Amino acid sequence: MERIDKVNGTFGRRAPAVSRDSVSPAVIKRLPRYHRYLGELLRNDRLRISSSELSRIMRVTASQIRQDLNCFGGFGQQGYGYNVKYLYGKISELLGVSAGYRAVIVGAGNLGKALVSSHMFERRGVIRSALFDIDEELVGKTFSDLKVYHVDELENYCRENRIDIGVLTVPRDAAAGVAETMAKAGVRGIWNFANMELRLDEYDVIVQNMHIGDSLMTLCYEMVSKEDKHEARPEVEGK
Amino acid sequence: MERIDKVNGTFGRRAPAVSRDSVSPAVIKRLPRYHRYLGELLRNDRLRISSSELSRIMRVTASQIRQDLNCFGGFGQQGYGYNVKYLYGKISELLGVSAGYRAVIVGAGNLGKALVSSHMFERRGVIRSALFDIDEELVGKTFSDLKVYHVDELENYCRENRIDIGVLTVPRDAAAGVAETMAKAGVRGIWNFANMELRLDEYDVIVQNMHIGDSLMTLCYEMVSKEDKHEARPEVEGK
Repeated sequence: MERIDKVNGTFGRRAPAVSRDSVSPAVIKRLPRYHRYLGELLRNDRLRISSSELSRIMRVTASQIRQDLNCFGGFGQQGYGYNVKYLYGKISELLGVSAGYRAVIVGAGNLGKALVSSHMFERRGVIRSALFDIDEELVGKTFSDLKVYHVDELENYCRENRIDIGVLTVPRDAAAGVAETMAKAGVRGIWNFANMELRLDEYDVIVQNMHIGDSLMTLCYEMVSKEDKHEARPEVEGK
Repeated sequence: MERIDKVNGTFGRRAPAVSRDSVSPAVIKRLPRYHRYLGELLRNDRLRISSSELSRIMRVTASQIRQDLNCFGGFGQQGYGYNVKYLYGKISELLGVSAGYRAVIVGAGNLGKALVSSHMFERRGVIRSALFDIDEELVGKTFSDLKVYHVDELENYCRENRIDIGVLTVPRDAAAGVAETMAKAGVRGIWNFANMELRLDEYDVIVQNMHIGDSLMTLCYEMVSKEDKHEARPEVEGK
């Protein structure tokens, strides 16, 4: 059993870690969503929330919530609800939000610009360091406070600035080459939007392939399924 | 049992449908990935592939592949492998790719532009119809062959053009209002990038919330977990 600090509000002052091994992969998968909701509550100055209210806004059963969050400790005195800040801090810590990873974004096209202009990185504790592109017209410009460098400088930049994460928004043909350059320069995680499944088996790098279009496909599937059901209603075929 | 046409190559000539009810939700979830790989093979003029080769490139066991795809019929003569085009067609049909849905994209910022300039829509059989924005400077302009209209025209446009899908890349504060406008005008599916979980319970609309940032969080989590393990190696603490 892991030791858990039962005192609330210690987040930010070296709160003892929840062991990653003690949390099941299924719970881990659901934590980003809790993190989003708790962050939203914090931004609205909500400091406490009951499992039943959290259940209502997140549309998850209260018992599921208690099951998911009971490994974090520091909450749940009957009638008081969760300490939002504490729980947010614990989940952040577990998910690596406080790891302070540094990221570069390669590809200063529309998607690259969209990513760097969002709060996506800061909300997850990732420091955006620079943009890179091959287009000389973009090199030297600044978008969302980030300078654009030429990709020729990528390897040196990553090494010198100890970059942890590379975000790939380059065309798919360029993706593998750029990824390898970054891996050689010590980058340990790649977030790949290049619409191909990147593999870097030779390197000690974690790749997260982001297929935005799969989500459009899921939407279409749910729409046709619903139509099936509507169509099936008036006439029931013999089975 | 559903009846399945065992003859290959009938796709495109009213091939009989695979019943959506006969495919498990777990398989459905994996189908977009098969669809991507098979589409890639087709673009490279590959017409047949064995389950063992598909297994190698997709990194899924061959028995998993056979399990996932056996409901589609029309393949698997021993030694011949899968008919790529047939299988691609069947999966497309099941996922609603051939439904010919029409979409508008609301928000002509960087993300909106990135989405419309990609092959994302056409590859999934979704017809991009128009862009909308509130910014008068953008209204009337054209991006990736799509004209930008003012959001004031959104409701009429959706009604007149029988729009099925609305893609939301507007700021989060505007998302709910725009979504409601579209729902009123008959839009049946919303693909929401506004970084808030949209709900339209009062309307008969399917919402697919896209949280790009959750995937960054998963990457960070995998990175810190890996560090945990590396750190744990040299010194094993007494348990």
